[in-house]
Amino acid sequence: MDIYISGVGMTKFGRSKDSLEKMMAEAASSALKEAQLERVDAIYLGVMNVEEFVGDSNFATLLADTLGLTGIPSTRVETASSTGAGAFETAFYAVASGHMKHVLVLAGEKMTHLPTAKTTRILSEVIDRSERRYGATMPALAAMIAQKYAREFNLSPLKLEDILAQAAIKNHSNGTFNPYAQFRKTITKEDYLKSQMVSYPLRLYDCAPITDGASAIILTSEPTPIKVSGIGHATDTAAVRHRTSFTSFNSTKEAAQKAYTMAQLNPSDIQFAEVHDAFTLFEIIGTEDLGFFPPGEGWRALEEGITHLRGRLPINPSGGLKARGHPVGASGLAQLVEIVYQLKGEAGKKRQLERAEIGLAQSIGGLGNNNLVTILERSDRKRIVKEGWSPDYHPEIRVSKKSSTPPPSEGVGILETFTTLYATPEGFRSPLTLGFVKTEAGEMVMACNPDYRSPKELKMGKKVYLKTREGLYVFEKFTLWSRLKHWSKGSPKSS
Amino acid sequence: MDIYISGVGMTKFGRSKDSLEKMMAEAASSALKEAQLERVDAIYLGVMNVEEFVGDSNFATLLADTLGLTGIPSTRVETASSTGAGAFETAFYAVASGHMKHVLVLAGEKMTHLPTAKTTRILSEVIDRSERRYGATMPALAAMIAQKYAREFNLSPLKLEDILAQAAIKNHSNGTFNPYAQFRKTITKEDYLKSQMVSYPLRLYDCAPITDGASAIILTSEPTPIKVSGIGHATDTAAVRHRTSFTSFNSTKEAAQKAYTMAQLNPSDIQFAEVHDAFTLFEIIGTEDLGFFPPGEGWRALEEGITHLRGRLPINPSGGLKARGHPVGASGLAQLVEIVYQLKGEAGKKRQLERAEIGLAQSIGGLGNNNLVTILERSDRKRIVKEGWSPDYHPEIRVSKKSSTPPPSEGVGILETFTTLYATPEGFRSPLTLGFVKTEAGEMVMACNPDYRSPKELKMGKKVYLKTREGLYVFEKFTLWSRLKHWSKGSPKSS
Repeated sequence: MDIYISGVGMTKFGRSKDSLEKMMAEAASSALKEAQLERVDAIYLGVMNVEEFVGDSNFATLLADTLGLTGIPSTRVETASSTGAGAFETAFYAVASGHMKHVLVLAGEKMTHLPTAKTTRILSEVIDRSERRYGATMPALAAMIAQKYAREFNLSPLKLEDILAQAAIKNHSNGTFNPYAQFRKTITKEDYLKSQMVSYPLRLYDCAPITDGASAIILTSEPTPIKVSGIGHATDTAAVRHRTSFTSFNSTKEAAQKAYTMAQLNPSDIQFAEVHDAFTLFEIIGTEDLGFFPPGEGWRALEEGITHLRGRLPINPSGGLKARGHPVGASGLAQLVEIVYQLKGEAGKKRQLERAEIGLAQSIGGLGNNNLVTILERSDRKRIVKEGWSPDYHPEIRVSKKSSTPPPSEGVGILETFTTLYATPEGFRSPLTLGFVKTEAGEMVMACNPDYRSPKELKMGKKVYLKTREGLYVFEKFTLWSRLKHWSKGSPKSS
Repeated sequence: MDIYISGVGMTKFGRSKDSLEKMMAEAASSALKEAQLERVDAIYLGVMNVEEFVGDSNFATLLADTLGLTGIPSTRVETASSTGAGAFETAFYAVASGHMKHVLVLAGEKMTHLPTAKTTRILSEVIDRSERRYGATMPALAAMIAQKYAREFNLSPLKLEDILAQAAIKNHSNGTFNPYAQFRKTITKEDYLKSQMVSYPLRLYDCAPITDGASAIILTSEPTPIKVSGIGHATDTAAVRHRTSFTSFNSTKEAAQKAYTMAQLNPSDIQFAEVHDAFTLFEIIGTEDLGFFPPGEGWRALEEGITHLRGRLPINPSGGLKARGHPVGASGLAQLVEIVYQLKGEAGKKRQLERAEIGLAQSIGGLGNNNLVTILERSDRKRIVKEGWSPDYHPEIRVSKKSSTPPPSEGVGILETFTTLYATPEGFRSPLTLGFVKTEAGEMVMACNPDYRSPKELKMGKKVYLKTREGLYVFEKFTLWSRLKHWSKGSPKSS
């Protein structure tokens, strides 16, 4: 059964004085109006952490009431920062079941009213507990991934900096044309370089902002000009250190594979995409994971202007999470709203893409462990799917395998990647250096060192000495002294 | 498309030292084992407020990882205290879409590790904000409903007390036969009367306990001995005072209507039911709302033994939320697990019902505003549905209409119902008297009076004087003094 979109709506993203339910009602009203509906068969409501951001639960009920739709079934859906896409997927299956005809998907978050340290702490709760206790935040983990990416693909620190700046500059530029965007100003490389270091090498301009906002979509089984062609959803390990790759996300690849297969499309069929750029590098990794560019080549496409608004494959015409803003529950759905605007030619002269018959959205939940890929298409797009069609997208998915033996409490290891985190969460001293260390047994552990004040003191790929302090791994440089200590431990004990 | 159940699992409910994910994994393992599955196509995870109870978000991902099912799509679903049933419904539609074959529904909550006042505060967040700020808790609102029920159906305080005690005694008795139940001891009327008053007239033994626990069900499109016959889901106003009836729940009635219609069954076809007895009276109201007994007659059925374990229509053979325990996210699914045990004849000699071919579960989300009704049936049950079948269940649903004009800040009103709350939430003085007052304009408002120390000082249906203090309505008896004040306000002002 084909599923269609009959209406979309959005609030302006940014800092809002309105309550969350008011913002969500505003987005819903626009969508219902466009769909010419007064009632729907069900509401699927995406909010990531309304309990801690707003202090309410039972929010699905509150929204049905606020919308004057009391009686209608209303269900809250959550998949961390991909929640908006998760709610869309859930609603898609509800309509596809044939039990419902018109369904409202509604997503939002209110975040700007809290102090930043508290918001950071709440956002960090999506991180695996064992990594969170080191003080790891989302930017810190993303920074370690950025460092690893640079090392794996031979990018110098200066080159990495330039690439990341370009991603931020591009998305800010796109955002200037988006009336719903939080930031509507261009930035220069100089602005980027002046922006505060959040977690080395990621600066403030590498991170999506804290945002209030809501978005809404009506799904229907009745044909409309916009069709849902494919949806895929996949998870990955809770802990980042259990991944087999730090430079790509299995969960994007598996989700993409499902979405392409359902849609009977290949990456080369996609004309534009909204890619989850919570951190600048994630856009680049996303374009690789989605099969648009080979691994390690996404940054070249950016550099060559391919992913620019007027390039061959525009990425984040909306401005992305970076410039449109990132109300965590809403972003996954807002991406799809942007795709609908583009497909319908309603994105406004400056933002409207020329080729806009088929678009893809990729949304990341948590640190790349609950991701969704959704493909939307104009219903009038001419398609000939050859019989026996099979996808030409075959990403390498190296499934993570957790070791069953606990790593040793002390010993030598290799510093796989690290970051120096300046914007630490509530209760942690700044700066805080964090790293992933591979032990001699091949086990990856998270480790910290609060004594390093600058990332310049460390180098990836070097031996470090690992020990435990208060139940946490601490790493230090493998010096003569630690060599001696290691040697003495390794030597047979005197009886 | 028919949807079936291929496996179920549960932890023992009660106080557990295990982490929430460990409990949920235990329940999931049993269900997967019974279904002879190692993988599923998706996980739908029901947790009500894992953010505040456990301090984690992104829990759907954590569970996929804990189960060793990394990669598989995992989505968290929440509908307040009916969350387990909400997750089941969501999974039902996913399988019914034809896109998935085997789906794991997993529900749980961990609550006992927090201080009771904090748990009470967290649970209260499901209540409408405007009522919560008066200090209203779930027991307080349920108590006001109990008072109103007694008045509407002419039950003396002693009679009400006796009925409520009987519900508690019955469910505790059933619980003694349930190895998964939190409480496995019978209670006497004396025990009931000795139990502490939580919110007049509800005692500790009227309220479901605070519980840790998890439950799991595998849904499949492949035929098995247990079929899902019908599901219904409906909401009601966030605020209780906006309801047109305080003695029945529209959301149960609308959900039941949908479930009966989908199943092509009538209330008289149901052989036994699990009914959401978070408060003893809710079981009685539930049996009326579901069409088993006429409004105001549910208590008679209890008194006559009809709803007892060996009665004509056993209600809560498991012991209900009262004795099995109430891990808020898990209960809605645990009810369905009990029905499966009964349908398969696996409930154990003492608990097993004789007639167990078709069972119903009713789950309440929030204070009766996000309810689900689910009907399960043995696949081998002989059924002849006459052509042109139509339900004989036609409950009265008086849709609430919120007034558009704000109520006056002062004036005379009628005390519709009230309670004296002893177990107040964090930050409120005990005892706290709360009431619903109908203003002269016909608007219902919540009001408090911290000066009343005993419910004996008040009577329902009497005139009260309503005023505002610090933005809250306060009511007091309509005495000579308040009459004078009211009269002077009503009289033309001297210039």
